Amino acid sequence: MTVRVGVLGAGTVGGALVNRLLSDRDAIRLKSGVDLEVRRVAVRDLAKDRPFAIKADRLTDDALSIVTDPSIDVIVEVIGGLEPAGALVLAALRSGKPVVTANKELIATRGQEIVEAAKRAGVSVMYEAAVGGGIPVIRPLAESLAGEDIDVVSGIVNGTTNYILTAMAKEGRSYDDALAEAQRLGYAEADPADDVSGRDAAFKTSILASLAFGERVAPWEVESEGIEGVTADDVASATEKGEVIKLIGSAQRGIDGRVEATVKPLSLPGDHPLAGVNGVTNAIFIEGPSVGRLLFTGPGAGGQPTASAMLGDLIQVASRGRGPRTGSAHDPRPRRQVLHR
Amino acid sequence: MTVRVGVLGAGTVGGALVNRLLSDRDAIRLKSGVDLEVRRVAVRDLAKDRPFAIKADRLTDDALSIVTDPSIDVIVEVIGGLEPAGALVLAALRSGKPVVTANKELIATRGQEIVEAAKRAGVSVMYEAAVGGGIPVIRPLAESLAGEDIDVVSGIVNGTTNYILTAMAKEGRSYDDALAEAQRLGYAEADPADDVSGRDAAFKTSILASLAFGERVAPWEVESEGIEGVTADDVASATEKGEVIKLIGSAQRGIDGRVEATVKPLSLPGDHPLAGVNGVTNAIFIEGPSVGRLLFTGPGAGGQPTASAMLGDLIQVASRGRGPRTGSAHDPRPRRQVLHR
Repeated sequence: MTVRVGVLGAGTVGGALVNRLLSDRDAIRLKSGVDLEVRRVAVRDLAKDRPFAIKADRLTDDALSIVTDPSIDVIVEVIGGLEPAGALVLAALRSGKPVVTANKELIATRGQEIVEAAKRAGVSVMYEAAVGGGIPVIRPLAESLAGEDIDVVSGIVNGTTNYILTAMAKEGRSYDDALAEAQRLGYAEADPADDVSGRDAAFKTSILASLAFGERVAPWEVESEGIEGVTADDVASATEKGEVIKLIGSAQRGIDGRVEATVKPLSLPGDHPLAGVNGVTNAIFIEGPSVGRLLFTGPGAGGQPTASAMLGDLIQVASRGRGPRTGSAHDPRPRRQVLHR
Repeated sequence: MTVRVGVLGAGTVGGALVNRLLSDRDAIRLKSGVDLEVRRVAVRDLAKDRPFAIKADRLTDDALSIVTDPSIDVIVEVIGGLEPAGALVLAALRSGKPVVTANKELIATRGQEIVEAAKRAGVSVMYEAAVGGGIPVIRPLAESLAGEDIDVVSGIVNGTTNYILTAMAKEGRSYDDALAEAQRLGYAEADPADDVSGRDAAFKTSILASLAFGERVAPWEVESEGIEGVTADDVASATEKGEVIKLIGSAQRGIDGRVEATVKPLSLPGDHPLAGVNGVTNAIFIEGPSVGRLLFTGPGAGGQPTASAMLGDLIQVASRGRGPRTGSAHDPRPRRQVLHR
């Protein structure tokens, strides 16, 4: 069964995903049983060079034409931001197309409306890549831990700030110097405000908190502070005490029962499970009375890890309605061909 | 919607699960939207005291009568071992009842047959709890990473042996002394053979390998070695070199393309991501070309964490057919009531 995919956006993540879909189509089909065909890709600038080889007639600068194209089965949204992404996602769902998105701002801000639209249309919306890049955390929280009365979810959910804080602690750099280095390496945008202000982490913390506690925690309810105020002196004096400064997103229920969510730089003891998480790595910690303490660690950003998470969602969405849920590896499929790598 | 659950087995995990289902029924319904009623529980000895309060007429020593009971919607299997668990699981699936199981031996050995039976009947079989206790790893591997061409999956998948090896390394105990301590604390069975021989780890490694590589890796294809031969001298000389001995289950594709799976004690460098995983904690490491390096850490055994994973599966199975997949937290449900805890 071939599933025809329309991709909205071809930046870092979109480009990596389209590349994966084109170059690994056979391998993906062999492993997952789903044949994913990139039917059309919406880009902002048709003239720009792309890191993938696709026929020119499959590219368009009219994203809405992909959403309304009856020959497209599934929509992948990797434009980011609230608009036009929000209108496109809602239009896709309303026309009965499942959506896979990595858009943390959109899900954090309008997730409820989007999920309602998906339910009404009877299709799925999945967003594993919106938090933690390639780390599977949405599915574990929403499904594996669906019955757990979670006490706390917290973590390092922004790779840029963790890179900067790590460089300050390990190499004694100043904040400005570490930020410039992160920009040189492509870990920080030219305008780093969304990352260093804690805004990006607040979106992700909002999503984690909503899933963990089963109620909506809006991004503006997340009390946020960035790392712009963290000085080399702060970092040095933490190091002296055997501590490490990390930007931590965290949510727990207060004594009044309300969910309290925050993003702020914290000085952690050196043996804290999040203290050793360095560079652009992300880590999410979950604790509950039955399950105990769980820690998920991995690359929290970057085109390839994020595309990997989106591909997992895409395979799920594409194989929906193809039967009950079982561990795919025990499927009665023949042993896969040996692929030369 | 009330979903009526039949539980086969009421040992450590089964008892913990029934206890959770009975005492947290309202909280689970509020958080997940699914009302789970423990309808019947099969036990070996009707006279034995149980850690949960259930009416006597809901207990039976005839497990098959639960499987064939038309008033039961879902079967939870926590008997363990190949038989009678295998026959009961197959009978349940054939009669159209979804199954949630924690039975690593059964899934590793007969997973293919069981998944085929589930597909034929159009129902789900889920086994998140079979590997890593409360750590979500089956769902991430089977779904989130469905498109990843995984290079290696490895980990500490047996808590008993990790407890023993940790006690030997940290407290300088002998193997026999550490084992006796593990038995006193309930971390090892009176007959510890399944754990210390690597048999339990081989079942789990077989399941992880099958999911990671999309083809069946039978438990007898896992080359296994236990920790019975690890001496205090081995541990001390590893410590001297800054290394740590861990029982590692691992699978990767060899140069001929075949999956090679092993369980054996390995001396790891002190900075290896699995070196710092101590006591009964489990950790699973996954590496792929796109997703990079992922590490999942948490309590790998014990009634409560394992029951938590099974509850997640149960909620999924029970809510199947209730619409498309979406992040549950953004459901248009009212804010949940504040529960006093």
